[in-house]
Amino acid sequence: MKVTVRGRTVHHRTVTFDERTNAVRLIEQRLLPHEFRIVSTRTFHETAAAIRDMVVRGAGAIGATAAYGLAQGARAFRGRDLNKFAVHLATVHATLLAARPTAVDPANAMRDVQCSMTLGETVAEEQALALAAAEDFANADVRHCQAIGQHGARLIRPGARVLTHCNAGWLAFVDYGSATAPMYAAQSAGKKFKVFCDETRPRSQGATLTAWELSQQGIAHEVIADNAAGHLMQRGEIDLVIVGSDRTLGRTGEVANKIGTYTKAVLARRHGIPFYVAIPLSTIDWRLSSGLAIPIEERSEHEVLGAWGVVQTPGQRGRPLRSSPAYVRVANPSSTARNPGFDVTPADLITGIITPVGIFKPRELWARRKELGWTDGRSGTR
Amino acid sequence: MKVTVRGRTVHHRTVTFDERTNAVRLIEQRLLPHEFRIVSTRTFHETAAAIRDMVVRGAGAIGATAAYGLAQGARAFRGRDLNKFAVHLATVHATLLAARPTAVDPANAMRDVQCSMTLGETVAEEQALALAAAEDFANADVRHCQAIGQHGARLIRPGARVLTHCNAGWLAFVDYGSATAPMYAAQSAGKKFKVFCDETRPRSQGATLTAWELSQQGIAHEVIADNAAGHLMQRGEIDLVIVGSDRTLGRTGEVANKIGTYTKAVLARRHGIPFYVAIPLSTIDWRLSSGLAIPIEERSEHEVLGAWGVVQTPGQRGRPLRSSPAYVRVANPSSTARNPGFDVTPADLITGIITPVGIFKPRELWARRKELGWTDGRSGTR
Repeated sequence: MKVTVRGRTVHHRTVTFDERTNAVRLIEQRLLPHEFRIVSTRTFHETAAAIRDMVVRGAGAIGATAAYGLAQGARAFRGRDLNKFAVHLATVHATLLAARPTAVDPANAMRDVQCSMTLGETVAEEQALALAAAEDFANADVRHCQAIGQHGARLIRPGARVLTHCNAGWLAFVDYGSATAPMYAAQSAGKKFKVFCDETRPRSQGATLTAWELSQQGIAHEVIADNAAGHLMQRGEIDLVIVGSDRTLGRTGEVANKIGTYTKAVLARRHGIPFYVAIPLSTIDWRLSSGLAIPIEERSEHEVLGAWGVVQTPGQRGRPLRSSPAYVRVANPSSTARNPGFDVTPADLITGIITPVGIFKPRELWARRKELGWTDGRSGTR
Repeated sequence: MKVTVRGRTVHHRTVTFDERTNAVRLIEQRLLPHEFRIVSTRTFHETAAAIRDMVVRGAGAIGATAAYGLAQGARAFRGRDLNKFAVHLATVHATLLAARPTAVDPANAMRDVQCSMTLGETVAEEQALALAAAEDFANADVRHCQAIGQHGARLIRPGARVLTHCNAGWLAFVDYGSATAPMYAAQSAGKKFKVFCDETRPRSQGATLTAWELSQQGIAHEVIADNAAGHLMQRGEIDLVIVGSDRTLGRTGEVANKIGTYTKAVLARRHGIPFYVAIPLSTIDWRLSSGLAIPIEERSEHEVLGAWGVVQTPGQRGRPLRSSPAYVRVANPSSTARNPGFDVTPADLITGIITPVGIFKPRELWARRKELGWTDGRSGTR
């Protein structure tokens, strides 16, 4: 999407590859929204560190980064010995995989790259195929998000007031995002509308990343505390909710997403407000038959007990950062916290699932599984 | 309630009066939860400044502070001329009233003190009556909260997991609090239970003040993000909700309280969890006939766009503060925010209203109005 830095507007993807220097180029997401900076990782070790240290985050974005990292590692190999090359490649693969062991996207993306490489007969051919496959993975991610945008845009009527939760934006993918893609497509179609960004405590991705994205695209938006959506719905100030999903159950239509999503779905139902979930097909889990079986990660309590930001006086204009934002302890020093990272929204609260191939009722997914890339249990393992 | 500072446990009220030095003694609430400090205001000007600058906050607490401030100002007068004394007293009254012009509690509390003073025939008598009336106001606030606690304690069964929102605790009153009073009474009765404190963004009073209060009393508790309650209810981890209220409509049973209260009531209803509101009688509004008529204060957007805390590394042990906690800008620098401070929960979502004279169904208040201190429109004007 477009980004304006010092008055100059440029189109950026979250992750790209520079063939000449064999470097992966990433948006340094830990500095956002306070500073926009592109960093280059010049070795696969640096690329793995960028995934591990959260320079890049989000399903599609870390998938593409791992795919590029594998190509980068492959291309760094000097020599013609295919056996030695295979040993080297295994090290690259293991290093990148260990960077975010619980995520499924890097694993899937690198499997794609490795499958493509089997067609090569020399080291040089395999190196070229690796890079081409990584580019294909990134381009496919972009196309899927664009398709979500095309299908979802018709839900956003001129003047609509849309609520979104967390960041299912282009920063989490290679471009366009999932929940944000319909907004970007509606804007391209000339529609005017407004977005409420749930702050999304404890990590505040709505106030930081989604608000930053929307401001860069010039889409009208306001940040609200997670507590405020109910009141705004009650006063008739929200017309539509669109969120993303980390995992959607193909058999039941249940949706796992950032903590607080379920609450917004319950509120939307009470007020008769449509509640949509935008997802790429890769996030559909065709195996599990109950949302209760989805493991809910309990994250560090420090996220709940404090916040990250730039120290200033309220309302002061910020200056560019020299390092990551500071952490402040907000809560009582002797108290502890619970921090479930995700929740599960049942199908009956969901109006529709926006996918790259169309919008479906959540309970319709299983019947339409062939169309939706059902893989008979072979994927969707996250 | 009891407070432990450097290993020493002492019982404190939020506000007391020192006759010898003619000083009001207040808990410096802006330093909580990071540091406990008692400050003395030695003139009525200092007392007014403490109200204005939020050293003390909460309905009952600022009411008592204003009452003591009026007595303090009266007692500072030197001379016997009743006319000059009356002029002086009018200045004291105006100064304290201007410190928090939208609050009704200081006005009501000072009216009580002024009425009592009319019985005096000399300056000295009026001075003595003023202090006695201020003490009466503070003691009555304590008694009301204790009575709420006695009625509400039976709702908390041994092993219960109670959710509360914001801080309707003893810090907001002179002692015991409203929503917290049943917890303190249940603890005194020997019951073991656990409290989930909603963080309560944007000002985080749950994570800061309520968590601090509960830790001082040794009540098991955990802070949660406002987003997490829905998930915990879904997984059967919450048995009961108790919140406070800024204004309860006697005619309809609707409850205005801190933003996010309505959301918790909607979630509780979906999960069949009892939802109680604890209130002193002074917060019942007998005039308004619709919650829509309650003005909802739109507060500074900086509250939503940032947070206050102590800068440290996550998990680091805090040190005593030298000044108020620091503000960090969390949100995207170019984004704006909406910040409604309160919301209105309809009667049908409320299981019961816990008052000093018993627990009532919200729609029962009007029929029981004489018992509940109905004043024919003369009070409850906030």
